[in-house]
Amino acid sequence: MQNFKLVLAYDGSRWKGWQRQGNTGATIQAKLEETLSRILEQPVECTGSGRTDAGVHARAQTVSFRADTSLPPEAILSHLRAYLPEDIGAVSLDYAPPRFHARLSCKGKTYCYRLWTSPLPCVFERKYVLRADEPLDRAAMERAAALLVGEHDFAAFSTGKAKRSTLRRLDRIELREVGNELCIFFSGNGFLYNMARILTGTLLEVGAGRMDPETIPTILESRDRALAGPTAPAKGLTLWETEY
Amino acid sequence: MQNFKLVLAYDGSRWKGWQRQGNTGATIQAKLEETLSRILEQPVECTGSGRTDAGVHARAQTVSFRADTSLPPEAILSHLRAYLPEDIGAVSLDYAPPRFHARLSCKGKTYCYRLWTSPLPCVFERKYVLRADEPLDRAAMERAAALLVGEHDFAAFSTGKAKRSTLRRLDRIELREVGNELCIFFSGNGFLYNMARILTGTLLEVGAGRMDPETIPTILESRDRALAGPTAPAKGLTLWETEY
Repeated sequence: MQNFKLVLAYDGSRWKGWQRQGNTGATIQAKLEETLSRILEQPVECTGSGRTDAGVHARAQTVSFRADTSLPPEAILSHLRAYLPEDIGAVSLDYAPPRFHARLSCKGKTYCYRLWTSPLPCVFERKYVLRADEPLDRAAMERAAALLVGEHDFAAFSTGKAKRSTLRRLDRIELREVGNELCIFFSGNGFLYNMARILTGTLLEVGAGRMDPETIPTILESRDRALAGPTAPAKGLTLWETEY
Repeated sequence: MQNFKLVLAYDGSRWKGWQRQGNTGATIQAKLEETLSRILEQPVECTGSGRTDAGVHARAQTVSFRADTSLPPEAILSHLRAYLPEDIGAVSLDYAPPRFHARLSCKGKTYCYRLWTSPLPCVFERKYVLRADEPLDRAAMERAAALLVGEHDFAAFSTGKAKRSTLRRLDRIELREVGNELCIFFSGNGFLYNMARILTGTLLEVGAGRMDPETIPTILESRDRALAGPTAPAKGLTLWETEY
């Protein structure tokens, strides 16, 4: 059995997220496994660096899978590019060491949340950004971001009951203006369910002046989801980078 | 009656082009006229700088219309932004001199044809570019472009029977590498039906080595559509700029 490392880009708009769900084929993992199984003529199971929610995009999702095949990576890559739908793209494919595992070996991830901050229409990027119509207080957002960075219990910034530890380390939150957008990059060693979207929703509340950045430590300590901001829509979020 | 100048951006993917066609509402002009008529509570007719084909996009299509209204441009613009679908965006709206006419006053136009020249997948821009899978001989394309620039009878580069003159002036063809794309900019005083797409199709034939750039003068002289290259797909083309 050979182990492989695949990097995937996808437009999540029409997909029910990364993770396979029973028999519905409408997830990226299911579509990828179906395609790889056809190419390699054997059942293939894939592991992603993590789940992405329905509607979330990926610029670089890392995937590992094992297969008994003599086809070299270049040949598999070229088949993948031919057979995957046009909203899922195979960026690269390489042999991986036997113990490489896309989720367990992942050292860190970066997500990018794209906010369209101009009154100008956003026609061509509309599926990948969220319109932020209110003026945003950048300094207040930077202050809140600084208070979020570090190792914390992020239970307040996740939905659903976490069975395991909700301790995570956020290494960096960077706000960067790119053209008509304010892009928020979140880098960390792991993200809880909806965490990047709730962090964004909270920063937007702070930016709009409805939340004081100085309340961030209280929200973290509370472990109470109700105290953090709303979950920002999926479409503005992109899994940007994975580190190994 | 007040005269207005509107600049519009649109993703042409799901539209049957700019020009109103009988009763089908699926054109950009029809959608815009319907929206303006609702906002201004009177029938409004719009003129575009020119037609764009089904599937062709616009970064800046200029439109003129007249209306008897006391609403200032900012108010109309804000209504347009609220009521137009998200794949049609109102960039700007201003009062125009009484004799301003989007088509007749237009001094020149620039189209951009975007070619994706990398083997990498093109997930996010896929609706706005054409994949050019063959290696392209840039020098040969530049040579052909140089022979196309100038005032010529472009009958060979248009489809359909032209009832009027097919003489046009191409001021510039610029090939520009932008990331994974080769963008071809065409600027001229007017474009015949399908002209930008046939120019692109011809440059692609030249780039792929199937057509000699030195045949361009012969093709122009022949006025024979069959001698030029194929019509490149609509989705790669964007009306980039209009000059007044």
